Amino acid sequence: MAEETWIGGFHAIEAALDRHPERIAEIAVSEGRSDRRVRRIRSQAAAAGVAVEDRPDAWFDRLRSDGRPLRHQGVAARMALRPAGDEAELGERLSAATEPPLLLVLDGVTDPHNLGACLRGAEAAGALAVIAPKDRACGLTPAARKTSAGSSERIPFIQVTNLARTLADLKQQGVWIVGAAGSGPVSLYECDFAREPVALVMGAEGSGLRRLTQERCDQLIHIPMAPGVESLNVSVASAVCLFEFRRQRLAGG
Amino acid sequence: MAEETWIGGFHAIEAALDRHPERIAEIAVSEGRSDRRVRRIRSQAAAAGVAVEDRPDAWFDRLRSDGRPLRHQGVAARMALRPAGDEAELGERLSAATEPPLLLVLDGVTDPHNLGACLRGAEAAGALAVIAPKDRACGLTPAARKTSAGSSERIPFIQVTNLARTLADLKQQGVWIVGAAGSGPVSLYECDFAREPVALVMGAEGSGLRRLTQERCDQLIHIPMAPGVESLNVSVASAVCLFEFRRQRLAGG
Repeated sequence: MAEETWIGGFHAIEAALDRHPERIAEIAVSEGRSDRRVRRIRSQAAAAGVAVEDRPDAWFDRLRSDGRPLRHQGVAARMALRPAGDEAELGERLSAATEPPLLLVLDGVTDPHNLGACLRGAEAAGALAVIAPKDRACGLTPAARKTSAGSSERIPFIQVTNLARTLADLKQQGVWIVGAAGSGPVSLYECDFAREPVALVMGAEGSGLRRLTQERCDQLIHIPMAPGVESLNVSVASAVCLFEFRRQRLAGG
Repeated sequence: MAEETWIGGFHAIEAALDRHPERIAEIAVSEGRSDRRVRRIRSQAAAAGVAVEDRPDAWFDRLRSDGRPLRHQGVAARMALRPAGDEAELGERLSAATEPPLLLVLDGVTDPHNLGACLRGAEAAGALAVIAPKDRACGLTPAARKTSAGSSERIPFIQVTNLARTLADLKQQGVWIVGAAGSGPVSLYECDFAREPVALVMGAEGSGLRRLTQERCDQLIHIPMAPGVESLNVSVASAVCLFEFRRQRLAGG
């Protein structure tokens, strides 16, 4: 059975009914409420075939999310956690993209806190998805989900069988493959990706981009750091690069 | 007694002898070595009044740093960990600055991992110092030092008694006080601090900038995030802002 969580509040539940009703197991509404927002939730749920239960207020106060009392406004939903996606989902997301997509590719990130922080930063910077290999890399563990502060439920996390093949496929679809490496010849601030689909490839903590992955890149860039500094945390480095691409897009748009 | 650590390698020890010999308790050199770099270390140490011991290779192999074997190249130093600085040290650093300084001010960061990550990002972005209040905020705990990946030994961490007064002092010295808040009216990418001394003020995790601190700011800015995203981790948000200021300086210099 898939892992489940409770979400609370009108906005979150309307969004869930809208985007992925198939993951909602049940909706609970504070009994006796019949205002406009509750009526809208009821009709949205009916249309999606999701059951709505009336519950006393004391029942809501026992709900927990990540060990803390759930903020609920008198409405809550029990949902399956978002699973990792695969190559097919990545393809669908790319086809549906309405602007040049920004992707984050993590090559060998094994620490769940780093993965969670990468998901959070990538979502904030407007990335379409985060891509990682299935093997020798961290998946959506509870720690990764928690560190992502909710982003793991919103941004697609795509696990692929063969990262080299995925990079080759992306390249064929016109995505520019940009690897971040301390030794990259070009500064992040010297390149301009305002109008191009870009996949930013980040290496593992410590060891950096693997040689084989570097060879798949169209361009290797570095973040110009202060003298004497060797590296940044992978989630911080990802965010600095992705937000620079976002800046370029906002400026160029 | 101050906490101590072992550092290893010629470059690190030359730098330590150069910058803060007073924190070196002893230096160990692989016995029998008399090459040029070792001779230079010996004369640097003699000039600084630091004792140098000859040790067998097996002795070096038992040294640990953060629980892992120390990388040493046959030379190691036992050092007092860098303590937090105070208002006087901040003043000295500002007086000695040769370019418009960049400062990071953390208003109420209580998580040591966040503090460590902030120190690491701030050092990489070229900040002169990180400033935080003494009370109701995290200090240089072992967890903070570890997460900083060595930055806590290099970038000054200044603990001040009264943050509001420090901000007022900085303002009087011509430093532009810039607060990052989700509600800030100006986008990070709309402001230009290429040539000005700047103190970036970040709020606590979750609750953001305190009202009183906001009132001390010359300008409130926000990071333009993707729709539906509420916040970034404080270390990621700090790094995104500080690297944008760095970009502006590199472009304007």
